[in-house]
Amino acid sequence: MADKRAIGVFDSGLGGLTVIKELRRILPNEDIIYFGDTGRVPYGTKSRDTIIKYASQDEKFLLSKNVKLIIAACGTVSSVASQEAEKLPVPFFEVVSHAANEAAKLTLNKKIGVLGTNATVKSGKHAEFIKKILPEAEIISCGCSMFVPLVEEGWHSADDIVVLETVKRYLKPVIASGADTVILGCTHYPVLKDAIKSVVGAGVNLVNAGTSTSEAVYKYLSENSLLNDKKSKGDAQFFVSDKPDSFRKIASILLGEEIDEKKVEQVDISNYD
Amino acid sequence: MADKRAIGVFDSGLGGLTVIKELRRILPNEDIIYFGDTGRVPYGTKSRDTIIKYASQDEKFLLSKNVKLIIAACGTVSSVASQEAEKLPVPFFEVVSHAANEAAKLTLNKKIGVLGTNATVKSGKHAEFIKKILPEAEIISCGCSMFVPLVEEGWHSADDIVVLETVKRYLKPVIASGADTVILGCTHYPVLKDAIKSVVGAGVNLVNAGTSTSEAVYKYLSENSLLNDKKSKGDAQFFVSDKPDSFRKIASILLGEEIDEKKVEQVDISNYD
Repeated sequence: MADKRAIGVFDSGLGGLTVIKELRRILPNEDIIYFGDTGRVPYGTKSRDTIIKYASQDEKFLLSKNVKLIIAACGTVSSVASQEAEKLPVPFFEVVSHAANEAAKLTLNKKIGVLGTNATVKSGKHAEFIKKILPEAEIISCGCSMFVPLVEEGWHSADDIVVLETVKRYLKPVIASGADTVILGCTHYPVLKDAIKSVVGAGVNLVNAGTSTSEAVYKYLSENSLLNDKKSKGDAQFFVSDKPDSFRKIASILLGEEIDEKKVEQVDISNYD
Repeated sequence: MADKRAIGVFDSGLGGLTVIKELRRILPNEDIIYFGDTGRVPYGTKSRDTIIKYASQDEKFLLSKNVKLIIAACGTVSSVASQEAEKLPVPFFEVVSHAANEAAKLTLNKKIGVLGTNATVKSGKHAEFIKKILPEAEIISCGCSMFVPLVEEGWHSADDIVVLETVKRYLKPVIASGADTVILGCTHYPVLKDAIKSVVGAGVNLVNAGTSTSEAVYKYLSENSLLNDKKSKGDAQFFVSDKPDSFRKIASILLGEEIDEKKVEQVDISNYD
């Protein structure tokens, strides 16, 4: 048994490409269809209702491409729109529960920092999942609104004073708490991991949701005999809601490989209602 | 002769409120209808085609409210979508030409800095208008992508190291040129004026597009006998495409007055096609 259909992945913009990077490493033979809502990015500063509406359109677009499974590669959508997504006709994976589970396993002092957009932090979803495993855990959440603009501007070096000062300001409560584990609760944040590491110290675990989620998807597909059985490398196709031009530039940083421009197409996402 | 209809004003988000502040000072008896596209903010990092489409929907919404005149209180829209707006059935004002004219009048050394979003800077519209008046002017343009997120996060103090370092980084070419006049080419930027002033020096003129544009609107309405002749203070009504909650919080900073929550309503802007 095998299922040759692609895996569908979406995000508010480009951050989800850090998840694709992990997916391609862990599931190299799977085809992937990615949708990035670059015409309406960011989601994390917007309201719950608006995020739910946008996520539902993104999912409808992926379903129109006949995917076998959908991943919300977006901390914000995972936090506020997962309940609605459970009604989808294909299995749905989000990035919050898998990152929360991994953090709960890694922590020794039961103090976990959660970094995310304002919408993610406000939802309290990471804390909810962590407390299912570790009811006594102390969770220190920080809304880091400036991280996505920093990454999208290409300012992510650990030597950059603006980056370092911004990281220090947002992470003050995490450092004060002595947390030994920090969840990168937005898929843009792995790009800032060196800067974050230099602020929190090398001994602190940083949890990349893309890795945890890709491993969970691998487990699900293999246990249900739904892996793609082809022997060649999987194909990836990219769709965006703004012009593809600026996508390609930042995408190669986040994905760690160049994207063939023939594989990037624009769609009018407001039609998927 | 008088025209009691409201003035329509729109922006990608909240920055346009700095224009409303000036409008209410210069035209205190006019009613104002404001639309802020908070569900799709920001525009400045998006493509030309997407900005033109969004601006056209914003204008259609204002026309449905029977306004007598439309102001694009948004540097990005003014720079890339003004040509389309000239087909509107009511007079259209944008913030680029008026700011450019004022800068051309103020400069003594004919060196003018233009700060704006990437889309604004790429359009070259400020330079085009300045060169009509001062063909020999030297224009130094800087795309400042991080300024809008900084303002919307409430980080705008001249004592804030992140703000100062960001301003210094973007304005390096302006300072090196010795420009004596700088256009704040995005309606969010007046909030950063103290920080910008402390970097460029007190002797440099900062041009606020909201002031120049409001004066041009006043001149047009009075010359055409279209001023509202009521004696009481004009009314302002606010519409947004995201939930009104977060709007009110930042709006009072930008507008300099509190907004009555009954005067803020949400609209589905993608219906105005």
